[in-house]
Amino acid sequence: VYALAGGGSSAARAEAMHDTKMRPGEVALAFDPAETAGDARLVFIGRAETPWPDRDSCPKNIRQAREAGRPATLLIDPPWRPGLEGLEAGQAIVVLLWMHQARRDLILQAPRHRETPAGVFALRSPVRPNPIGLAVVTILEIDREAGSIVVDALDCADGTPILDIKPWIASVDLPPSPAS
Amino acid sequence: VYALAGGGSSAARAEAMHDTKMRPGEVALAFDPAETAGDARLVFIGRAETPWPDRDSCPKNIRQAREAGRPATLLIDPPWRPGLEGLEAGQAIVVLLWMHQARRDLILQAPRHRETPAGVFALRSPVRPNPIGLAVVTILEIDREAGSIVVDALDCADGTPILDIKPWIASVDLPPSPAS
Repeated sequence: VYALAGGGSSAARAEAMHDTKMRPGEVALAFDPAETAGDARLVFIGRAETPWPDRDSCPKNIRQAREAGRPATLLIDPPWRPGLEGLEAGQAIVVLLWMHQARRDLILQAPRHRETPAGVFALRSPVRPNPIGLAVVTILEIDREAGSIVVDALDCADGTPILDIKPWIASVDLPPSPAS
Repeated sequence: VYALAGGGSSAARAEAMHDTKMRPGEVALAFDPAETAGDARLVFIGRAETPWPDRDSCPKNIRQAREAGRPATLLIDPPWRPGLEGLEAGQAIVVLLWMHQARRDLILQAPRHRETPAGVFALRSPVRPNPIGLAVVTILEIDREAGSIVVDALDCADGTPILDIKPWIASVDLPPSPAS
């Protein structure tokens, strides 16, 4: 599917946004993910390999997953592997996942740990309008050529699609004031 | 568009995933966002009102936005407002945004603050395969009926679509070991 995407309209789109500038050393893909995925459409960059075969076996959260002491692996597909340059073992990252098995229509939810229902935006449930999961984890090992990143833990099911990886940065990712 | 989405296939989809259980007090939307948005397709739940009219005027990051001392407002569209139940002023939240003005095809990038180019996944640039921005902010005021949430700062352009709001929770959102 990547080979079918032409470069012409990608360039036109970039120009329309006044965003054609590239600096020395920068490399553009041969295709525009915006076009293979559509507008506000996601492209999966890989899959998570985790110890949890299905949702029922998943830990309740990343803390429980961590307590299980079983690492997980992010497998990044070939087109995206150059994007791993600069990530190192020991580094903390934010992983965004597409919780593909979650329904999206529950606006109020009643998790077991709460006495009363709460709005979806007050909960970390994978069930949400856009089922994007967020995990802050540490890189234990990384093989950029193989697109393989071993992290300390993940609480999602084996095979969950990966949307993004970002470096975790204390000066931007800590809340501005004390919070629980 | 919401009114056009039937409930039948939504129920069928939930049943196929063995996820038909609802607990007392839970409320399902009349439509399934998975169907209005498509598979791995995003639905915008609102827009951010920020002091920055365009990308060029945006602060470089949330820390700089915070130093500017200018709050921002999350405006949530009517269908999603019940999902705000349980969010309170003073609480820290994670906001996921769709960086709609960003191109998506730069796999290596050379930001001014770095001596050498780096992979997109080692950077916090809004330019990425799936241009999802992440901001950890504090709620200053919230009006759930009006769908309005004033937060201490945001570094994105005015009008940026909102994808999700999650409560920030120290026990899951802090990295497991010291990191910068």
